[in-house]
Amino acid sequence: MAAGRAIDPFWSMYQQHKTDQVAEMLEEYRIGNLSKEDAAKIQSEMASDPYALDPTRNPLLIRRALKPFNAETPAELLSQNLVTPNDLFYIRNHLPVPYIEESKYALTITSESLEKPIVLTLDDLRNKFKQHSVMAAIQCAGNRRDDFNKQKEVKGLTWDVGAIGNAVWSGPKLRDILMWAGVDPESPELMHVHFEGLDKDFEKNYAASIPIDKAMSPAGDVILALQMNGEEIPIDHGFPVRAVVPGVVGARNVKWLGKVHVSKDESKGHWQQLDYKGFSPDADWRSLDFNSAPAIQELPVQSAITHIKPESDVISIKGYAWSGGGRGIVRVDVSTDGGKTWQVAELEKPNQRPGRVWGWTLWTLNIPLEQMKDKEQLSIVAKAIDESYNVQPDGTPGLWNLRGVLNNAWHKREVKVNDK
Amino acid sequence: MAAGRAIDPFWSMYQQHKTDQVAEMLEEYRIGNLSKEDAAKIQSEMASDPYALDPTRNPLLIRRALKPFNAETPAELLSQNLVTPNDLFYIRNHLPVPYIEESKYALTITSESLEKPIVLTLDDLRNKFKQHSVMAAIQCAGNRRDDFNKQKEVKGLTWDVGAIGNAVWSGPKLRDILMWAGVDPESPELMHVHFEGLDKDFEKNYAASIPIDKAMSPAGDVILALQMNGEEIPIDHGFPVRAVVPGVVGARNVKWLGKVHVSKDESKGHWQQLDYKGFSPDADWRSLDFNSAPAIQELPVQSAITHIKPESDVISIKGYAWSGGGRGIVRVDVSTDGGKTWQVAELEKPNQRPGRVWGWTLWTLNIPLEQMKDKEQLSIVAKAIDESYNVQPDGTPGLWNLRGVLNNAWHKREVKVNDK
Repeated sequence: MAAGRAIDPFWSMYQQHKTDQVAEMLEEYRIGNLSKEDAAKIQSEMASDPYALDPTRNPLLIRRALKPFNAETPAELLSQNLVTPNDLFYIRNHLPVPYIEESKYALTITSESLEKPIVLTLDDLRNKFKQHSVMAAIQCAGNRRDDFNKQKEVKGLTWDVGAIGNAVWSGPKLRDILMWAGVDPESPELMHVHFEGLDKDFEKNYAASIPIDKAMSPAGDVILALQMNGEEIPIDHGFPVRAVVPGVVGARNVKWLGKVHVSKDESKGHWQQLDYKGFSPDADWRSLDFNSAPAIQELPVQSAITHIKPESDVISIKGYAWSGGGRGIVRVDVSTDGGKTWQVAELEKPNQRPGRVWGWTLWTLNIPLEQMKDKEQLSIVAKAIDESYNVQPDGTPGLWNLRGVLNNAWHKREVKVNDK
Repeated sequence: MAAGRAIDPFWSMYQQHKTDQVAEMLEEYRIGNLSKEDAAKIQSEMASDPYALDPTRNPLLIRRALKPFNAETPAELLSQNLVTPNDLFYIRNHLPVPYIEESKYALTITSESLEKPIVLTLDDLRNKFKQHSVMAAIQCAGNRRDDFNKQKEVKGLTWDVGAIGNAVWSGPKLRDILMWAGVDPESPELMHVHFEGLDKDFEKNYAASIPIDKAMSPAGDVILALQMNGEEIPIDHGFPVRAVVPGVVGARNVKWLGKVHVSKDESKGHWQQLDYKGFSPDADWRSLDFNSAPAIQELPVQSAITHIKPESDVISIKGYAWSGGGRGIVRVDVSTDGGKTWQVAELEKPNQRPGRVWGWTLWTLNIPLEQMKDKEQLSIVAKAIDESYNVQPDGTPGLWNLRGVLNNAWHKREVKVNDK
């Protein structure tokens, strides 16, 4: 991106690359060192930080990167409520947070099939269309990446089990807006709906797309959310408008939505074409062909253990379970012996129609302390089963991939019984 | 079912229960023995075999039960064509095959929301509605059950990898017929569409149901098939009409369709309520609560190895891969070392729209013999990944269930290199 010009502004934009590993890789390209005077001059120019307008965040969030800001919810807090509180919801930003004045906000809708762009204000989005509320979990493709690192290091931000949250999103349906705009869902020329965020680097805005069938199906429940859990969407979650695509990976739930474009082609954006794709365990960076894998859309069945605590006469084990594509959770199996024997957990499910279960399910299993008294160590394992009877795979070796996405292996936690 | 009357006719109907194991279980109920004369009399009464009208079958099919007839396709033949020939398609009958005269055939449509039943003839089905052709694989929930038996015995017919096939089904869309009949897909009173087969025991016809969203969605592609691969549907596959529910377990693709009923409730049929459900590995027959599990509808991602053969300078490995719910296959990983390292197979995919990929995918991996020359044994493993990035689970232990359904673990075949 910086070819032919100064690289410094890019260093301030993508600060996640300021690591020893990258410095080491760059060492062989060193052609000299700046004089002290020149270095000081550069330093003062770089003082204009593109992240200066980022909002303050709840200190309980576990920071994974500061610029851009990435932080996850502590595991224990995830299973306290079916709905995740706004200030505890994980934050996965790719760029500086854009500062958007409500009165100046405009959503532009374009399509190869429309003669001219359509512009909607916030009031239009609030008043012109029926408002809907949809409970939907949003999960980052990198959730649980850290378990891959334990096997073999991957490239990507470290995430434990907290890069997921469940909220009620309210606003107009994207389908209603596009139908009103004159987009024909049956047109063979229209296959993808693009979302462009108002967050950007020097040239490009964050961009992604979803298949038109998901956008236009009445059962797809895609909304342009103006509210999160009954409040204005917080700045970190896309104020004033976020595309919420239930059942689909976080990367397509575009925040600070500025533009919707309906096209024959998929988005050419970096995060659609060159990231958020799954590869075979033995694919390597040298021979990697990004075109060989489809962009991640619906996510596979997932669960995690978030809480293991002794109570009066039981050990209480809790967690969440969720699957992409509206496939509700039908069962969560929990083992205390590493997967040799299984018990069925109790489920707290969202009240949603089969095939449109976008919210997650919380689960609990209470194990009598008496059952545990002869054991020194518990190897607790959880696996979820969804409406299509997809079951989480057993281990990470078959799932490992160089970018560390899509880890949905059985979740394991070792607990020493003396420690409990 | 036979309570209070003679059990003999039931023995001829459900001959799959005539096993040593069942005889042993019944031994404790013996109250005496028939005289030779009485035994002979009974014998002659039982000569009227309800299976007498069953058609002849291709001798290549591997017989798993004769009455009712159950047989699978030999593995090697499955991967020869994207479309499985009619006479090689697996047969899973639950009851004697009904003999249906074309001119007397009638399909009855009823609903709690319709004033009176609607009756359609075969000509109505052929001419009143637009005809559609849909390529769809149909798989029995018990496909690959035999791998469960290797771990611990399950109750059910033995199936290797051949209880699946892929065909092109043609006929009117169920949605068009129900809309024409006046069924309102938005009615909150209507949740399930029942299918009743003309195959029956003494009291009840084969019956099953699917969710109304699947039946009524334009993207659901449910058809009442009059043809299979361009020919009249063969008697064993439902002549003259079979409900084809793409992406959904075979048990809901009801053959010899006699009745469609749209209802608030799920079918009360035996095969909907007391069979074709998935349970946790440690569930046992004594404490089993069938109400605790949903009826299987969409199936999980699946693959199998069907062919391992040396050719001039390679070993050619082939198989099929498929997933329920229209989720196309995006990758098949193949290992020759039991899952330590993986190579990506070449895919032959059906040409269908993402999210509506009902046909299966065939795959091939050619491994140079040179790579194999130092090895005595190959442990070949296949796993498929679908559009939602669901991956097959690693092993059977986490999937095992007392009825032996839903085995979609990595498929493994051990090959001695000397034997090839």
